[in-house]
Amino acid sequence: MLTDMDISNCASLKDINELGADLGLLPEEMMQFGHTKAKVELSVLQRLAGQRKGKLIIVTAVTPTPHGEGKTVTSIGLTQSLNAIGKKACACIRQPSMGPVFGVKGGAAGGGYAQVVPMQEMNLHLTGDIHAVSSAHNLGAAAIAARLFHEARLGKAEFEAQSGQAFLDIDPNEIRWHRVVDHNDRCLRQIQVGLGDNNGPEYASSFDITAASELMAILALSHNLADMRARIGRLVLALNTQGQVITAEDLGVAGAMTAIMADAIKPTLMQTLNGSPCLIHAGPFANIAHGNSSIIADDIALRLADFVVTEAGFGSDMGFEKFCNIKVRQSGQVPAAAVLVTTLKALKANSGLVSESDINLPDQARLEAGFANLNWHINNVARYGIPVVVAINRFATDTDAELQWLTAAVNASSAFGCEVSDAFSQGEAGAVALAQTVVRAAETESQFKLLYSDEASLEAKLSTLAEVGYGAAGVSLSIEAKQQAQQLTVLGYGHLPLCMAKTPLSISHDPSLKGVPQDFEIPVRGLVLHAGAGFITALVGNVMTMPGLGLKPGYLKIDIDVQGEIVGLG
Amino acid sequence: MLTDMDISNCASLKDINELGADLGLLPEEMMQFGHTKAKVELSVLQRLAGQRKGKLIIVTAVTPTPHGEGKTVTSIGLTQSLNAIGKKACACIRQPSMGPVFGVKGGAAGGGYAQVVPMQEMNLHLTGDIHAVSSAHNLGAAAIAARLFHEARLGKAEFEAQSGQAFLDIDPNEIRWHRVVDHNDRCLRQIQVGLGDNNGPEYASSFDITAASELMAILALSHNLADMRARIGRLVLALNTQGQVITAEDLGVAGAMTAIMADAIKPTLMQTLNGSPCLIHAGPFANIAHGNSSIIADDIALRLADFVVTEAGFGSDMGFEKFCNIKVRQSGQVPAAAVLVTTLKALKANSGLVSESDINLPDQARLEAGFANLNWHINNVARYGIPVVVAINRFATDTDAELQWLTAAVNASSAFGCEVSDAFSQGEAGAVALAQTVVRAAETESQFKLLYSDEASLEAKLSTLAEVGYGAAGVSLSIEAKQQAQQLTVLGYGHLPLCMAKTPLSISHDPSLKGVPQDFEIPVRGLVLHAGAGFITALVGNVMTMPGLGLKPGYLKIDIDVQGEIVGLG
Repeated sequence: MLTDMDISNCASLKDINELGADLGLLPEEMMQFGHTKAKVELSVLQRLAGQRKGKLIIVTAVTPTPHGEGKTVTSIGLTQSLNAIGKKACACIRQPSMGPVFGVKGGAAGGGYAQVVPMQEMNLHLTGDIHAVSSAHNLGAAAIAARLFHEARLGKAEFEAQSGQAFLDIDPNEIRWHRVVDHNDRCLRQIQVGLGDNNGPEYASSFDITAASELMAILALSHNLADMRARIGRLVLALNTQGQVITAEDLGVAGAMTAIMADAIKPTLMQTLNGSPCLIHAGPFANIAHGNSSIIADDIALRLADFVVTEAGFGSDMGFEKFCNIKVRQSGQVPAAAVLVTTLKALKANSGLVSESDINLPDQARLEAGFANLNWHINNVARYGIPVVVAINRFATDTDAELQWLTAAVNASSAFGCEVSDAFSQGEAGAVALAQTVVRAAETESQFKLLYSDEASLEAKLSTLAEVGYGAAGVSLSIEAKQQAQQLTVLGYGHLPLCMAKTPLSISHDPSLKGVPQDFEIPVRGLVLHAGAGFITALVGNVMTMPGLGLKPGYLKIDIDVQGEIVGLG
Repeated sequence: MLTDMDISNCASLKDINELGADLGLLPEEMMQFGHTKAKVELSVLQRLAGQRKGKLIIVTAVTPTPHGEGKTVTSIGLTQSLNAIGKKACACIRQPSMGPVFGVKGGAAGGGYAQVVPMQEMNLHLTGDIHAVSSAHNLGAAAIAARLFHEARLGKAEFEAQSGQAFLDIDPNEIRWHRVVDHNDRCLRQIQVGLGDNNGPEYASSFDITAASELMAILALSHNLADMRARIGRLVLALNTQGQVITAEDLGVAGAMTAIMADAIKPTLMQTLNGSPCLIHAGPFANIAHGNSSIIADDIALRLADFVVTEAGFGSDMGFEKFCNIKVRQSGQVPAAAVLVTTLKALKANSGLVSESDINLPDQARLEAGFANLNWHINNVARYGIPVVVAINRFATDTDAELQWLTAAVNASSAFGCEVSDAFSQGEAGAVALAQTVVRAAETESQFKLLYSDEASLEAKLSTLAEVGYGAAGVSLSIEAKQQAQQLTVLGYGHLPLCMAKTPLSISHDPSLKGVPQDFEIPVRGLVLHAGAGFITALVGNVMTMPGLGLKPGYLKIDIDVQGEIVGLG
């Protein structure tokens, strides 16, 4: 079979204007970027305000393994097949971060015959949204550091007289807004800035990857530009020496940060290999952020299509949990059905059983042991009142016997149904049965419920997430986390939902615990307020908000060829 | 008069495809970005390879003052008026950096009725080139840090066995590639990275503003994509423990860095207020970098237009000197004429005379004293064998008597001619006389000569630049700079030209020395190799490669309004 990149390069693409028109966009609602991308103007939401909305399908997965489960392949494949069976469908997915693209994965546009094309356009800059988030974020950091510098240099009276601005009395030990870059750069995790003479206050700082920026979360959760402007105004950049919050509004930088992101709020339209529309917007990771594409993209797509397929990062304990408890809580847009992606390999790898044999070879014992992980995720999704269809993403080495065993096992579970997907190798023809089953699932009455209420205390929310969300025996907060919970409640943020930053490689906090871990406690080492995004991040275990580059980074393969084309992605 | 932003917002724009067609571009040579911008494909250079080239006009200025001389206003105004008198003209200017946009200037798209429009599109992301430079630069930094981390962790034998890559034996004290961000962030000038456990090597590092990145210089100096790829391969990222250079090619990251910049190499087409074409490309500052737009943009424009107006940053001692000794040296494209911009105010401010009276009021003594600065710049440009036309950019408060005196003084100098420009207030009608005089100047035979030859030693080049380029008594090298000159010569880089990083606020190294400083020595504190860009930067005095935000930063005014439009720029 051809490589993903070869398939992408051989694709014959619809003109971007034709693609938009087919979806129902007016010419003035499209802002073209090259020949294969267009931003969608938010004016479409006013035009279609009274329009009935299509059904939202959320795609999630079992606990991820190094083999790759093909969640994006399945999301794109399902969208293609829904269109193939005559349903008007649109995918809504996140923009890939350059960190993983150059670090390890080489791309996140799907693969095989279920891709967004051209994949290099999607995997690199797209239409610049991640750059805009990085730039707006770092302007905020420069602003807080500069204000601290000038206030310290001049003192209250002189500062106010010379600048015409209020003295904020920033506590240099309580700076809450640091910097971001969209690369995996381990040595920026912990830095000291402001060294040398006259270079501003010296303080301990850090860089996160841009996917972890609160601005990225805001981009994904905003309802419109005015809402984004208001959220950016609420960002807490520091505390003053009295322990009161200093916001981006207080600092006078919220407007400029919004201006930098004024185009980023418009989702980007691209197409799949069979010419199905795909809106790409925002890029929060699901381990260190909320892991879902934007409310705005879903909202646009739901007014233009019968079915909108969106994807939540990592396993159902990660992105899907946050989809329900953060995104749906803010959007009010309940999904009609969920698709849970698995592979035979993923279950064997999740079995916890070590084997000498190749993971591609049949191994009934490992498969049966690994089924427990899938079954946990089926029940986890069903807990939210959403019908769940399991999609087995077929690999060439899979045997019919194992696929049949697994299908029967799923059919005996609480899942709505189970289908094998050949979207990777067969494109739109490969997920027709999956599409049909999803359509039937979406016709049932969904009884969506949140896991916890706004009113529950932060500690109660943590307990619920640990015990019900992960099946833990309980939660243990560090002394610092306890103090932070108390402080955040006093400051009036106790009603916010929680965004758990934990490893995706286990349902627990410990990546070595495979399958369905038992008898563990979730250790919470700290709580971080995101007043603009509207949630509090709980740092679980030793999860880090800045990845590192491995021993054989993805960038080694990437280059331009003699024709000037990019090679080595995906 | 309306604000720049109001004028920009009221402009009726040509369709971008019509603009490109008028310039002579084919539809397939344009990559549209929204309704007002398009990248130009480099395939146009092959199509027009045999085409006769138009005349290149370089715009420079007297020593800059806080009042603003209007160099971009004059460049855009001249382009507009050349088109108005029937000459086909195109401007080629740099992309503004967000550092100054949010820091102080609020924009760099010209002003009044001599603007590139829409100005907010030009001043913010444009088509993402600066973001691409930042991203490619920071990937290089992440790559060198990660390689150091893994080599230190594993040792030579294990590293080579596990990674399949050669052990580079990087000297952690000789890392030559740090990081960039496109903001003014003083506290990133000097930082310590890699703190904490397992976060990579701890080392002293820094952020420059992106305009100072060697990749920005490469973008401006490359002839085509293959040339850019080769230059990026030559970037020196570190030395090994034997003192030998480690390049981006050695590290295996040059291809990926080029891939990130593969679209950035295509200039962006926009229009001026009268629908004249303007190519915007690259953004090096002229104090800390070479300060000129790209060779590729000039090359495209010269094949499509009769006159190409390009602009060199700051005074003629800065961007214009680098235009001649770096850009023309690499491009071979000799200018036909130069325009030297001044204002009455600039001369008064450059007089060195302190006065209690308003600088807008007539003051013959200050004007006459300030003329010395203008006369120095006239002679400095003439030294390169280029006919020079002085443009007096008129302000509303200027008196006819002073303008007449200055015109007569210039006409008695070695300048080719002198015209008053009203481009700011009158648009294309305001610089007709200037355009006519520039056309006549460009018809004379230009006798271009470089200031120094490749063969001169680095110390001899420094002496020539100091003594002839700035009128200094001589140059003094720090011990470190002397050692670096020796080391660079041994390593085989002694033939490269020099890029002087010095203050633009004086012809000397000392911003307090106004007018035509005498009896000073240029202190060189260090030399920095830019093997990819093809020059060596000499750090003069205390010039810094990362600006800071002032007491009343430009971002305070910037916001979005209720219609969602950006306000407060410019």
